[in-house]
Amino acid sequence: MAQKPSIPKGTRDFLPFQVNRRNYIYDTIKTVFKKYAFAPIETPSFELSSTLMGKYGEEGDRLIFRILNSGDKVKKADLKALEEGNLPKFANSLSEKALRYDLTVPFARFVVQHQNDLTFPFKRYQIQPVWRADRPQKGRYQEFYQCDADVVGSDSLLFEVDFIQIFDEVLSALKVPDFTVQINNRKILSGIAEVTKEEDKIIDITVAIDKLDKIGEEGVVKELIEKNVSQEAIDKIRPLFSLTGDTQKMLTFMREFLAESEIGMKGIEELEYVFQKTEILGLKNAKLEFDVTLARGLNYYTGAIFEVKANGVKMGSICGGGRYDDLTGLFGMKNLSGVGISFGADRIYDVLTELELFPEDINQTLEFLFINFGEKEVEYSLPLLQALRNNNVTAELYPDEAKLKKQFKYADDRNAKYTVIVGESELEKNEITIKEMKSGDQETMSIESFTEKYCS
Amino acid sequence: MAQKPSIPKGTRDFLPFQVNRRNYIYDTIKTVFKKYAFAPIETPSFELSSTLMGKYGEEGDRLIFRILNSGDKVKKADLKALEEGNLPKFANSLSEKALRYDLTVPFARFVVQHQNDLTFPFKRYQIQPVWRADRPQKGRYQEFYQCDADVVGSDSLLFEVDFIQIFDEVLSALKVPDFTVQINNRKILSGIAEVTKEEDKIIDITVAIDKLDKIGEEGVVKELIEKNVSQEAIDKIRPLFSLTGDTQKMLTFMREFLAESEIGMKGIEELEYVFQKTEILGLKNAKLEFDVTLARGLNYYTGAIFEVKANGVKMGSICGGGRYDDLTGLFGMKNLSGVGISFGADRIYDVLTELELFPEDINQTLEFLFINFGEKEVEYSLPLLQALRNNNVTAELYPDEAKLKKQFKYADDRNAKYTVIVGESELEKNEITIKEMKSGDQETMSIESFTEKYCS
Repeated sequence: MAQKPSIPKGTRDFLPFQVNRRNYIYDTIKTVFKKYAFAPIETPSFELSSTLMGKYGEEGDRLIFRILNSGDKVKKADLKALEEGNLPKFANSLSEKALRYDLTVPFARFVVQHQNDLTFPFKRYQIQPVWRADRPQKGRYQEFYQCDADVVGSDSLLFEVDFIQIFDEVLSALKVPDFTVQINNRKILSGIAEVTKEEDKIIDITVAIDKLDKIGEEGVVKELIEKNVSQEAIDKIRPLFSLTGDTQKMLTFMREFLAESEIGMKGIEELEYVFQKTEILGLKNAKLEFDVTLARGLNYYTGAIFEVKANGVKMGSICGGGRYDDLTGLFGMKNLSGVGISFGADRIYDVLTELELFPEDINQTLEFLFINFGEKEVEYSLPLLQALRNNNVTAELYPDEAKLKKQFKYADDRNAKYTVIVGESELEKNEITIKEMKSGDQETMSIESFTEKYCS
Repeated sequence: MAQKPSIPKGTRDFLPFQVNRRNYIYDTIKTVFKKYAFAPIETPSFELSSTLMGKYGEEGDRLIFRILNSGDKVKKADLKALEEGNLPKFANSLSEKALRYDLTVPFARFVVQHQNDLTFPFKRYQIQPVWRADRPQKGRYQEFYQCDADVVGSDSLLFEVDFIQIFDEVLSALKVPDFTVQINNRKILSGIAEVTKEEDKIIDITVAIDKLDKIGEEGVVKELIEKNVSQEAIDKIRPLFSLTGDTQKMLTFMREFLAESEIGMKGIEELEYVFQKTEILGLKNAKLEFDVTLARGLNYYTGAIFEVKANGVKMGSICGGGRYDDLTGLFGMKNLSGVGISFGADRIYDVLTELELFPEDINQTLEFLFINFGEKEVEYSLPLLQALRNNNVTAELYPDEAKLKKQFKYADDRNAKYTVIVGESELEKNEITIKEMKSGDQETMSIESFTEKYCS
């Protein structure tokens, strides 16, 4: 019996207009990555489970899609583990491979595995899908693309400078009118914990501070108290909550605030370098803002932390990134500093949709549709069609001698720019009639004029 | 402990030079598909198991990668099925989703599911990976890309004509010097079975004939005898084995041969139409050949059958395709005729490698590398770097003041076209030195000349 077709929850089909819009975003990102001399790599969709498991915490492990072993191998199911309710162990006995969860761990694995074939600093970009067994909900999918660029093998801050340029170029090229690149430095966060004498509470402090946007100053203070941060430390931290405005003033304040912390001062120095070099280069549309409350990826980032927000749109960050120091350590290659960024393509898609920023012509993919009036006219039309195509113009001939109404409906549905009419009269006079679909304007011209105008 | 990194057997990592080569192939195919007004779609990497299972025969089912259900769902493991050795049933109880095995079944599902949003005839292309649990071996992978174009909703033979043009354009653009598009028609094969009065043995007959290349005329005859094809029929079929050469002569012979078979004559008529229209359009590099022994996809194709071979290279077909009549029937949408083709990108990659046809500049991705002489020089270089990038030139600054030898080795490894030298002398005189890496030629010029020459 015929099945009613559907797809798994949390996955998506993409119709042509959606693919064209998505490719517009990917192509823009790719073009900029290339201009900054990042080279593309690709890794397999599935990795050995041992490569992925344990790299994303317990919650991450739960969200990794595992691939069932094929054929007879399922006989090795660990029924004892099932009986004991040890489901991860049971799953392990049935599966040796898993779909990648992000591009970062496969990239680390790739760098270590191919280290002898790579040139360091190694600058790679990678735009591929990842999969997560998240509960499907609005804006959260089980399959989505990540668009990452990373450099490993250098601690030069010039890459932080480049990445700010890349954010600026990509989002400017996509015509996002107003966006902010927020930057902080993990060393500054460490410095804050140090000067408030709460080094062991650095995670608690930064997680709380990071929520300033959402829960306000009193909310943050409440959370700090709950986490047993001392009143003295809280009093010291409090002025940071209202630290906004002029970058130089903020940096001056922080230099004083962190004077006693070597690591904190190192963070300030790094930030100043990035700001100063960015000043030399200039920015097209981005605002660059120091945000001392920005605190993402704390178990991971060791230097700069980036986040990009589209202003005037209710949406979380659309890009992020930062510097890390031991990405490849997990796979046995120590002390390889790196810095990377990621574009949230689905969120950027939503921003462009909401602000109506997709160029109109993205979906005007068909230039000429030849109307089909029958066999004789088809033979007359074919060389003209060919001449257009030889000139790299997208053109097609309606495949059957269908009713005109149907053919013109097809032209409308396909958003054709022109229809070409070759009827009896045109055939007789060696002419061709072109109708511009939007205006409805028609023009009849000789074959010579046509080829001159459109085929050369 | 650190893991020694590796990837599952049958999967591949791609280094930058490989991704660039692969993209060169995909982009060429995509450009031609678009020119012929095919629109892109994408479907999810995994489908519901019920969409895929049973569509590829028993062998196909075995090769489908299944995704293990997440979390508590594995508790529903059907242990009774395992005990009884019913492994497919056991696997079913553990898995509801599976990775797509090809692009055809997902396409059929897509067409039926979205039929109200599509314009028919619907012309789509799709370039995405597929996965098969094949035993890994040379040239056979568990993950590989398919590059398909199909039209559904029309039985017009003009699409067959277009697809021949597409084969010709793509392979000509890739500079494959010599290739043959073989064409046959399933109706001709039916006709052969009919006129030899062996209708019920059509599969046996065509499978045997198809092996002519490999096992020779006597081999085919032997196989026909084994399959109990009558001696009379064999005698009648035998002349087909040596049917080569001039198309018109072959068609004349076949018209006589099939005179008594209505379906056979229909096949001839279709073939003649395709040849005649292709004659009008011309072909760039392709040879178009009628091959009455070409017999692929017999359970599937109902009209034209295509296969493309690169001549002078020991390799199977590099493209294929054909017309089918009931692709979407499985999902409840009957009588939707279609025709489609597929490019074997991995094989084309191997052909281009063997014949050294990849353009050299594919991997010359870095135009300018600025040598780093220290902080002062960096600040002098940054605006020049920016000026190049603003002119869409790929350029980068070496990130550290490393030894010159190391920086030039990087330039070589990255295959940089030029290095830019801004040392003390250049700084003083407001100049810049450009070294062309291939020739070793150096030129010192003013900043003005540089920006005029490279940045505008």
